Amino acid sequence: MVIHSEFLDALTPSSLRSITAKIRDKAKRGETVVSFAGGLPSPEFFPVDDLRRINEQILLEEGGEAIQYAASDGYDPLRMYLVEFMKRYQVTDISYKNILITSGAQQGLAYLAKGLVTPGSVVITENPSYPGALDTFRGYGAEVVGVKMDEDGMDMDELERALETHRNAAFIYTIADFQNPMGISMSVPRRKRLVELAEKYDTFVVEDGPYSLISFDGRVMPAIKSFDTYGRVIYSGSTSKTIAPGLRIGWLIADEESIQKLVYLKMRDDLQVNNMAQRQVLRYFRDCGFDEHLRQVTDVYRSRRDTMLRAVRESFPQGTRLVVPGGGLFLWAELPEGMDTLEMFDYVFQKNIAYVPGAFFCPDGSGRNAMRLNFSTSSEEKIARYIPILGEMICSFGGQKSAS
Amino acid sequence: MVIHSEFLDALTPSSLRSITAKIRDKAKRGETVVSFAGGLPSPEFFPVDDLRRINEQILLEEGGEAIQYAASDGYDPLRMYLVEFMKRYQVTDISYKNILITSGAQQGLAYLAKGLVTPGSVVITENPSYPGALDTFRGYGAEVVGVKMDEDGMDMDELERALETHRNAAFIYTIADFQNPMGISMSVPRRKRLVELAEKYDTFVVEDGPYSLISFDGRVMPAIKSFDTYGRVIYSGSTSKTIAPGLRIGWLIADEESIQKLVYLKMRDDLQVNNMAQRQVLRYFRDCGFDEHLRQVTDVYRSRRDTMLRAVRESFPQGTRLVVPGGGLFLWAELPEGMDTLEMFDYVFQKNIAYVPGAFFCPDGSGRNAMRLNFSTSSEEKIARYIPILGEMICSFGGQKSAS
Repeated sequence: MVIHSEFLDALTPSSLRSITAKIRDKAKRGETVVSFAGGLPSPEFFPVDDLRRINEQILLEEGGEAIQYAASDGYDPLRMYLVEFMKRYQVTDISYKNILITSGAQQGLAYLAKGLVTPGSVVITENPSYPGALDTFRGYGAEVVGVKMDEDGMDMDELERALETHRNAAFIYTIADFQNPMGISMSVPRRKRLVELAEKYDTFVVEDGPYSLISFDGRVMPAIKSFDTYGRVIYSGSTSKTIAPGLRIGWLIADEESIQKLVYLKMRDDLQVNNMAQRQVLRYFRDCGFDEHLRQVTDVYRSRRDTMLRAVRESFPQGTRLVVPGGGLFLWAELPEGMDTLEMFDYVFQKNIAYVPGAFFCPDGSGRNAMRLNFSTSSEEKIARYIPILGEMICSFGGQKSAS
Repeated sequence: MVIHSEFLDALTPSSLRSITAKIRDKAKRGETVVSFAGGLPSPEFFPVDDLRRINEQILLEEGGEAIQYAASDGYDPLRMYLVEFMKRYQVTDISYKNILITSGAQQGLAYLAKGLVTPGSVVITENPSYPGALDTFRGYGAEVVGVKMDEDGMDMDELERALETHRNAAFIYTIADFQNPMGISMSVPRRKRLVELAEKYDTFVVEDGPYSLISFDGRVMPAIKSFDTYGRVIYSGSTSKTIAPGLRIGWLIADEESIQKLVYLKMRDDLQVNNMAQRQVLRYFRDCGFDEHLRQVTDVYRSRRDTMLRAVRESFPQGTRLVVPGGGLFLWAELPEGMDTLEMFDYVFQKNIAYVPGAFFCPDGSGRNAMRLNFSTSSEEKIARYIPILGEMICSFGGQKSAS
C-alpha cells in the first residue's frame, strides 16, 4: 500500500536533483561524468583540516553538550556571531533574536513557503530563477510568476505590473547578488524600489543570498534588507557556497515576532539543527581565517570563469549570448533561438557531459535555448578540454555552424 | 510587519519545548533546575571519545566528500547498515531502498503529517502519547483522537470503534515499545490485530520506536512492521536515545514507492541530512561496540528507575498509581483524582524542580492528575534527594497526606 494524498501525488523529483541522480547512477556503473550541472562549490577548497581541529576542540571543550538536545531557534553564540557577520551586507540594526538557524538555506525557503503560501497564492520570482526554490514554492501550492531580468536585475516596472495583477502575492523571491542562474546583481536603486513596492502592495521580499560573498572584485553589495524600514524583507543566508554544503547551515533574518512563528514551525518539523554543525560554523567563521579562505576561493573561481568564458566564446554556436558574471558559480548561455537544450540533454549526456537545461529555471516555460554552466567545480584544464567538446556537440546537434 | 497566515497563526510553542525554554531562562540567570521533565538521554554516556576518533577518520579517509552535497534519500552505506540493524526487531524483508534517512525522527513524523494529514482529517494515537507528535499532527491540521491504554498497550476494541467513527483516519500513531509517557509495551497479539485493523479500515500505522532498545531485561519485541504483510506500517527509528540526540539522525521504513514520495518532499524541504552525522552514526553502530554501550546505558537507567520508583512510592500522596516501566526513560505517575499537575507546576518550579504535566500528553484533555518523570538524566543521588522534595511539595500543594 503506497501512501497517497493530493499533496504527495503532485510532487515530482526536484528537477536539479534528478540530474544529480542520473550522474550518480553513471558513477555506480563506473562512468565519470564531467558535470557543469552542479551548484557545487569545489570540494578541494573545503576546509577539511580546519574542521578536524575544530571537531576536536568542540568535543574536548564542550563534551556531551555538543551532541545533546538544544534550542530550536539555534545556538546562541552562532546567532550572535551572525549579527556581526551581517554587517558585511550593511545589515546593522538586528539582534540575535532576529535570526533563526536552519538546516541549510533550503529549509528556510521551505518554512516561508509552508508558512505563507496557500493553494492558489502567487510567488513572484526572477525569470529565470533557482529551480530548487521554484520546486518548493510550487510544492506548497504556489503559482510562480516570473519577472524578466536585465543587466540591473529584476525589471521593476514588470514587477509592479505583476503585483497589480496578482494582489495576493505571498512574497517576491529574489537572488539579488550574482543571481542563479544569470550571475547578475540587482542595482541599488532597484533594491530600494523593491522595498517600496513590497510595502505598497502589502507583501514580503525573500532575499536569498548564497553567492553574495563570491564576488570577483571583492565588493559586497548592501543587502535589500539594509534598505528595509518596514520589516518587509526576510533575508536568507547560507554557508553552503562559502564553507561546505554538507554541514547544512543556513539562517533567516526577520523581525522577532516572525522568527518566533518560524521557531514554532521548527519545533514541529525537526526540533533543531545539528549541534556539532552549528559549532563548526561558528568556530570556522571566527577562528580560521574565513576572509583569507574566501579570497582564495574567489580567485580560483574567477580564473575558472575566465577560462570558461573563453572556451564558450570559441566553441559555442554563433549568436550565443553570454552574461559575464561578476561573481557566483554560474555562466548562463543563451544559444541561438530554435536550439533546444532540453532535447539536446541526453545526446550530450551519453558522452558523459552534463549541464542544466535553461527551461528548468523559467517559470513561464521559456529558456528552452539556454543552459546553465557551473564553473566553480571543474579545474581550468577540465573546462578547457570539455567545453569545446560540449560546444561541438551543441553545434552538431543543432546542425549549426560553430563560430571561431 | 509580521508574517502571518492561518497556518502560522495557529501554531503555538510546542508544549514540551516551552518547559525546556523556561529551564534555559533560569539557567541564564544562574539558577539550576533539577529537571525530571526532559526526554533526554544522559549526556555522561554520550560516546564523546568515540566520536572524536570517528570524526578524525571520516575527514582523513573521505575528505571533502563528507561535507559536500549528497543524496536526498540518505547515505547509502548507512541505509544498508540499517537493513541489518532492523533484524533486531525482526524486520527482515527490507532493502536499503525502503529506508529514508531523516534529520531526527521528528522530521519523519512531520513528513508523514505533511504528506497524509489534510485539514479535518483524524490521527489516532494512544492516550496519553508523545506531545511532540501531537503538536506536529495538529500543526498540520489533524484532529487527534486518543485511545486508552492498559498494561498490554492500546485498547484494540476502542481503537476499532474510533476507526468506525472516523472513517478518514490519516494514520494510527503508536509508540509500541516502552511507550512515552507510560512505559508500557504493546503485546504481540495486539500488534498483529493492529495491522489487520489498518488493512480493514484502509489506513496506515506509524510505529515510532525510539525506546525499543532501552530494554531493562534486554529483550527486544518484534516490531509491528514485522507483522505487516500489507505494507500498512511505516516504521520510525531514531538514534537520539541510544547514541546522542544532537546528531539528528532518524529513519523511516516503508515500501519503496512511499519512500520515493517522501524523498521528493525532502528535496523541497531541506535537500538532505547532514553528511558528517550520517557517517558518524554508521561508524558508531558498526565499529564502536554499540551493544556494549547499550548494555551499560540500560543498566544505569534500570538502577535509576528503581531509585525513582522507591522514592516516589515513599513520598508521593497515598493513592498515587504507577506503572513500572520495563524500559525507556520515563515513569508515569497518576496522583489521586482531583490533584492538578498543571496548576501545581509553577509552585514546584519556583523551587527549581520540573516535571511534565500529564495533560500535555492527553489528546482528550484528561491526565490533569498525572505527571511524567524522567529517570534517565539524573543521578541516583539526585533522584533520591529531590523526588522526596517533589513529593512533599505535591502533598503540601494538594493538602493531602503523604503515604508511608
